[in-house]
Amino acid sequence: MKKGQLLYEGKAKRLYATDHEDILFVEYKDSATAFNGEKKAEIDGKGTYNNRITSLLFERLNEKGIPSHFVEQLSDREQLVRKVDIIPIEVVTRNVAAGSLAKRLGIEEGTELQRTIVEFYYKDDALGDPLITEEHIDILNLASESEVNELYAKALLVNEVLSQFFNEIGVILVDFKLEFGRDAEGNILLADEISPDTCRLWDAETKQKLDKDVFRRDLGSLTEVYEIILNRLGGKTV
Amino acid sequence: MKKGQLLYEGKAKRLYATDHEDILFVEYKDSATAFNGEKKAEIDGKGTYNNRITSLLFERLNEKGIPSHFVEQLSDREQLVRKVDIIPIEVVTRNVAAGSLAKRLGIEEGTELQRTIVEFYYKDDALGDPLITEEHIDILNLASESEVNELYAKALLVNEVLSQFFNEIGVILVDFKLEFGRDAEGNILLADEISPDTCRLWDAETKQKLDKDVFRRDLGSLTEVYEIILNRLGGKTV
Repeated sequence: MKKGQLLYEGKAKRLYATDHEDILFVEYKDSATAFNGEKKAEIDGKGTYNNRITSLLFERLNEKGIPSHFVEQLSDREQLVRKVDIIPIEVVTRNVAAGSLAKRLGIEEGTELQRTIVEFYYKDDALGDPLITEEHIDILNLASESEVNELYAKALLVNEVLSQFFNEIGVILVDFKLEFGRDAEGNILLADEISPDTCRLWDAETKQKLDKDVFRRDLGSLTEVYEIILNRLGGKTV
Repeated sequence: MKKGQLLYEGKAKRLYATDHEDILFVEYKDSATAFNGEKKAEIDGKGTYNNRITSLLFERLNEKGIPSHFVEQLSDREQLVRKVDIIPIEVVTRNVAAGSLAKRLGIEEGTELQRTIVEFYYKDDALGDPLITEEHIDILNLASESEVNELYAKALLVNEVLSQFFNEIGVILVDFKLEFGRDAEGNILLADEISPDTCRLWDAETKQKLDKDVFRRDLGSLTEVYEIILNRLGGKTV
């Protein structure tokens, strides 16, 4: 598979064409960003951690019957993925109150929610990715009602599999963000990444934060905690 | 009915006990506030306009089979209402994009929505009344699922009646906020007020704003436009 033209550069990844129409080349960058890009840094190794962790998690989800755009990990920073049109909705699943939920609703961070909730955010940097309801999705024509139901159901399914998986390695899956895309046939496929950039992961015993909040809140070395996650997932040290 | 002890003072109204356990005395104030209380003014006559307009609208809704807490208008500033426990959810119904919806979602103000939408906001000044979903309502224990369905259905019904009523007098009902309460038996009753403070009302021809946006955005005399609404509704000049 040949790495072709740069198609898109996001905050954390670059996408390249390949010689296959339906396959893209993903390159994970070392850039860390937070607060809608207001806080930025370059952190050696971050791209490698996220690539390896995402690859491990997408493989695990695939084994459990939840396919994604992931095809294979090529190198430390590179993956092959299936080409999809990303649906501009960030699907956030929450088991424990943290981050924006805790702040917006005045719930103490760390409070276990009486039920898992799924939230939708409009993926639009200029608007600051606002929370949206299913009716907003409708008037913005972001997805059909049946697609929204599918996003919701898939988010809960991924939550079930990942929560159990993390639980086995002593980690609480507090919340996480998923993105989905449509393939050429209009099928909805899990896409983007699943990593400590997109999940809140707390050590089950100590409640130590093992995710991007370490960067957001200046809590220490990001790569040290990403290394903990990678190692517990069975991945080799970067 | 005797005006008793002051029970509660809000931004726009005072509530007093009466000698009837289930009946309260409401006094409309002349205070205008916007942006969660950041902008404030005293505007002579505002309380009178809102009391009269609310009384007319609650009477009209009652005739159409939508009861509310409203019992009767007593004087220029005073109403009797049935006592309810206010549900801390602001129910916003929107027919045309304006205000926070236009800004949050990047839709041009004045765009007719392809469908009416109903939004819920958590009535909490300290949190700035954030937008919430039905799942947030659930985890915050603000209302049961069947109550939420009732709020939703009642909002649409009120929208139907009021939109037609305003249409007859050359006014577009752009959006409006309702509050509801539970009576002693747990029945949900429309409450609070319906006035140019809580509705966006545009002249159908000129699109002139005939509501509190005149105050929010410094567009001229608030009482002049409230007077237009009162007169078109058939009420007497203040």
